[in-house]
Amino acid sequence: MKKEIDLIDSYKLLHPRPVVLICAKGKGEKVNVMSCSWITPVSDDPPVIAISLWKEGYTHTLIDETGEFTVNIPSSKLLEQVWVAGVKSGSKVDKIKLLKLNLVASDTVNVPRIEECLGTLECKVKNRIEIGEQILYIAEVKKALADKTYFKKDIWTDEAEVLLHCAGKTFSIPKLIKNKS
Amino acid sequence: MKKEIDLIDSYKLLHPRPVVLICAKGKGEKVNVMSCSWITPVSDDPPVIAISLWKEGYTHTLIDETGEFTVNIPSSKLLEQVWVAGVKSGSKVDKIKLLKLNLVASDTVNVPRIEECLGTLECKVKNRIEIGEQILYIAEVKKALADKTYFKKDIWTDEAEVLLHCAGKTFSIPKLIKNKS
Repeated sequence: MKKEIDLIDSYKLLHPRPVVLICAKGKGEKVNVMSCSWITPVSDDPPVIAISLWKEGYTHTLIDETGEFTVNIPSSKLLEQVWVAGVKSGSKVDKIKLLKLNLVASDTVNVPRIEECLGTLECKVKNRIEIGEQILYIAEVKKALADKTYFKKDIWTDEAEVLLHCAGKTFSIPKLIKNKS
Repeated sequence: MKKEIDLIDSYKLLHPRPVVLICAKGKGEKVNVMSCSWITPVSDDPPVIAISLWKEGYTHTLIDETGEFTVNIPSSKLLEQVWVAGVKSGSKVDKIKLLKLNLVASDTVNVPRIEECLGTLECKVKNRIEIGEQILYIAEVKKALADKTYFKKDIWTDEAEVLLHCAGKTFSIPKLIKNKS
């Protein structure tokens, strides 16, 4: 039996979905981190992704200064950090310090990556589209890294426990299913 | 230990991710279905999503005729249909008949929804951006429906077994994790 869902809640039908930690750095030294699950690949060649960020947030102001960000893929071990990175604003607190995350210099962008994450995409913005209260950033991936213990045959293993965001403080991890055919 | 990933494969770090069945219908009567996991919410108010489709595929030609499509959320019961919908082209075969899917008229668009799916978003295209070999459609959600047995407190339950695409013919389902704090 199907029920109608309020339009403002309709995006929830597209969850659970991967949640990532976006690092951004403006022209100053401060690095900010936020969690984001409104992200998708757009193209493989050229390698392009899209992320949607809230206009009232802090991260987009840093990205707008430099056109760069990193996408860092957390495991379930970082659940608490992912939660805090999503609810606290970098305009008020240094979330990198608060969350005790270790930063490592990236190779193609001036924004660092997060050492504790399973993998990273280094990204440069190609296009920026304002939609309602959000900004959709379309960005080219310049470098990609993955932990070889957990990324095998092009797939994160179940043991990677990549985090999927459901809603609020509820998260899932993926579990492989056997192909029935 | 991190290894570098070929850029053309870098999108795989953003999988596993929800896979949906996109229905489209041109000005004629034929309805086509394809599977897609390059989809993300963009905004909640207005309710906007984005999907990336291959330029060489068939679905985008139908969407370009009418500016409408439906996003249908399959469970693991439809794994085989999702696989076939992703590898066969609607330009050559009637996939709806082949996959024995039942269509139901939508309320706000002329494209039907798939009865066997857990939920549906009825969508109208707002914007269309060509990126490499892909087209990114930005669309407003006009109506949303979800199976009330499986969509509870704004979350698909584990029992819904919403399908996540890993790579090739490998799929996962989400498993809730307990909040540690």
